[in-house]
Amino acid sequence: MFKKLLVANRGEIAIRIIRSAQELGIKTVAVYEETDKTAMHIMRADEAVCLGSGPRKDYLNIDRIVQAALSTGAEAIHPGYGFLAENPMFSKKCTDAGLVFVGPPPQVIIDMGNKVVARRIMKNAGIPVIPGTDILEEGELGEQDAVDFAEEYGFPIMVKAVAGGGGRGIRVATNVGELIKGLKMARSEARMAFGNDDIYLEKGLGNPRHVEVQIVADRFGDVIHLGTRNCSIQRRHQKMIEIAPASLPADLSENVCRTAVKAAKACNYVNAGTVEFLLDEADNYYFLEVNTRIQVEHTITEMITGIDIVRKQIRIAAGEPISITQKDVTFRGVAIELRINAEDPKNNFMASPGVIQIYQSPGGHGTRLDGAVYQGYEIPRYYDSMLVKLTVYGFTWREAVDRLDRTLKSFAIAGVKTTIPYYKQIVKDPDFIEQRFDTSYIETHPHLLDYQDEVPELEKLASLVAEINARGYNPYA
Amino acid sequence: MFKKLLVANRGEIAIRIIRSAQELGIKTVAVYEETDKTAMHIMRADEAVCLGSGPRKDYLNIDRIVQAALSTGAEAIHPGYGFLAENPMFSKKCTDAGLVFVGPPPQVIIDMGNKVVARRIMKNAGIPVIPGTDILEEGELGEQDAVDFAEEYGFPIMVKAVAGGGGRGIRVATNVGELIKGLKMARSEARMAFGNDDIYLEKGLGNPRHVEVQIVADRFGDVIHLGTRNCSIQRRHQKMIEIAPASLPADLSENVCRTAVKAAKACNYVNAGTVEFLLDEADNYYFLEVNTRIQVEHTITEMITGIDIVRKQIRIAAGEPISITQKDVTFRGVAIELRINAEDPKNNFMASPGVIQIYQSPGGHGTRLDGAVYQGYEIPRYYDSMLVKLTVYGFTWREAVDRLDRTLKSFAIAGVKTTIPYYKQIVKDPDFIEQRFDTSYIETHPHLLDYQDEVPELEKLASLVAEINARGYNPYA
Repeated sequence: MFKKLLVANRGEIAIRIIRSAQELGIKTVAVYEETDKTAMHIMRADEAVCLGSGPRKDYLNIDRIVQAALSTGAEAIHPGYGFLAENPMFSKKCTDAGLVFVGPPPQVIIDMGNKVVARRIMKNAGIPVIPGTDILEEGELGEQDAVDFAEEYGFPIMVKAVAGGGGRGIRVATNVGELIKGLKMARSEARMAFGNDDIYLEKGLGNPRHVEVQIVADRFGDVIHLGTRNCSIQRRHQKMIEIAPASLPADLSENVCRTAVKAAKACNYVNAGTVEFLLDEADNYYFLEVNTRIQVEHTITEMITGIDIVRKQIRIAAGEPISITQKDVTFRGVAIELRINAEDPKNNFMASPGVIQIYQSPGGHGTRLDGAVYQGYEIPRYYDSMLVKLTVYGFTWREAVDRLDRTLKSFAIAGVKTTIPYYKQIVKDPDFIEQRFDTSYIETHPHLLDYQDEVPELEKLASLVAEINARGYNPYA
Repeated sequence: MFKKLLVANRGEIAIRIIRSAQELGIKTVAVYEETDKTAMHIMRADEAVCLGSGPRKDYLNIDRIVQAALSTGAEAIHPGYGFLAENPMFSKKCTDAGLVFVGPPPQVIIDMGNKVVARRIMKNAGIPVIPGTDILEEGELGEQDAVDFAEEYGFPIMVKAVAGGGGRGIRVATNVGELIKGLKMARSEARMAFGNDDIYLEKGLGNPRHVEVQIVADRFGDVIHLGTRNCSIQRRHQKMIEIAPASLPADLSENVCRTAVKAAKACNYVNAGTVEFLLDEADNYYFLEVNTRIQVEHTITEMITGIDIVRKQIRIAAGEPISITQKDVTFRGVAIELRINAEDPKNNFMASPGVIQIYQSPGGHGTRLDGAVYQGYEIPRYYDSMLVKLTVYGFTWREAVDRLDRTLKSFAIAGVKTTIPYYKQIVKDPDFIEQRFDTSYIETHPHLLDYQDEVPELEKLASLVAEINARGYNPYA
């Protein structure tokens, strides 16, 4: 096993990785930018290396990060999610420097990072893919191919960046005009976002459900799955709430999971990964993409299987086998995960940076927190706004929802606006409670934003401790 | 289901109960004493009633608590553990006032509270009990019976209070002199502690293991068990660390659990309870006692079964059936629980009251906190010194121990001494790691107290946030 691991990330996922490393007896190295020097992940590591003045650019500086690993004597690097996690050059440069990259080999990241190549590999393996085009040529030739495709399959059509993924680089066209315009826009956006303006088309499935399967693969060719997740509740193609298991009919669930294992084998996957599918209304499922990294929502799978996925990642990267078989994987209950961000939902989810004046979080049965902040912490405006990831478990769906409601109400956070009030609305929504949701849920439930900011949170909570001391009970409860 | 529940307790167990009540949509009423008015359980309830000036006596005032329930419109009372939880008069007065007592009927509490009666009931039901006497007469007649018993069974002999239990009211005699002296001392202690000086003898089992079974019973005669717990690691007969499952050979575990269900039926048990056993070195098991309440360590059972025991308690008290069968109960992994107290282990575990200046707690996979404090809270000197109950889960024993180690290291508590450094020693101890422990463990491992108070905790931690801000990383990590 490694003696020292560098974590090339920040926030809750850096802390998450440090936890598993510590449990394995591995020393940890954090990296940070000057603009992020009060971040909690730095405190949790055994040592920390400043990468530069930031913001953001140093967390993307491959050479500095590799250098930080070499200079501290780290033998491995865990990329987390985001930043360099799916950059094949990072994986390659780690390997070239004699460091172990905790994730799949570069070729897997390259293949799965190119959405057209990924679709081809899966199609060749007999896995159902959504009808789509190859890379479209620029100009009139590509436009004509696009119009032909639309005529054959009908609208809506998804215009997608070949280098996109994770919901980024997508435009929806519902008519020829939008399609032609969308091609240009998508191409220009893709160039900006990914440095690669290749685009392609997929038939739109209406309002599909997003179902994904956690897989774990080792170097010896063994692949197991850890069941399904329903990640349909999305805002602008970004997941907001995830649920495990996806609550599919047993045979469908079995088929989807088996297909995911087949997909992992088809692309020679090693380490933990996710195979994503879209389900149409008739329960047909189609390959969407493979995410070649740990995902935000891996916690719900850990809750229902009891398996520490990051521990598995590290051990597999160190050359160990999976060490359990498919039949050792058991599923119990229901888990729900959501991201508590410092954002103002009523103001278009605009980031709400500031100092966290009070921070109290819920606990107890079936409650997991993956936090990245502390009382007194000032949220820098340069990074994502996640304060804490809340994961709840219930023996049943109803119990999980009850617990989500209880835990959301038990946070006391003052100093910044958060997404908690919005989530509280969702938890009370009959469609959510009855599990009637697909990828259109957030869009089709705009009334959930019509909540009263009861007592303004800051005013209410900043005085909490003082009030309790004076009155002996919480006057707002 | 009840609309409102009064929680007749304080600290973490009051908060624990409030959580399950909230999840069931039940409003909660906290009670408190004037000396305890900043306690966290008050903040978590929907309303709070001051019982009096305290300390301690008002939490024991049956009439005031019943009155508080009636005046707030509560329909039920949950007693938690300690205080009035096993006082049959409390249960009876609740019932007389038309309130539902969340626990077993008065007669069960009466029968199981009298350890001689409890032994008789179990013996009649064919359950193995440790050889013992009836209530001993006072004076020479009783002394002679004691000596005769010692001659028949040999030393050590346990002198026990009939009204004791939970490890209280016990003296060990290893020869006739200690026995005669012990009778007098035990009698006088029992009179002071329980208002009942009846005592009896049990044969001592050497260094047995303490194994207990969580049972759940409803009004319809159905009883299930939720598996075993090993609670052998005790200090002065008080549990310090508990582990689920007890890691017994499969057939022994099955027998113990089946016997516990039989015991619950033998005493007409209703609601959640615990049947405790002692195991000798030859794996013979003997009935010890029934605890007619929720126990501190119920969290480890919740971790490995995924079942919310307090939720079950409330629903059963409301007249519902258990609603799951024995085969719905599945076990996964290993859970360990310990109590983080504001005490100085090196100073004979003396209470260490004070203001909590910094309070940061661990999170992540397999980590559960049942807390009762917050940053800025002053621990009153009148009550027990538990800050937070830490429960960890691991897929394997080794993973659970790794996680315990990691989470203990991740607490940042300044302002009071805690038992954390002592637990850190235990987690590193080869005997603990290799699961070699019985009820003599703490006594036979006095060297675990030989730790260096590295950097004094207060000094180290009080400056933590300031240091981080100045230097950008934790210089002590």
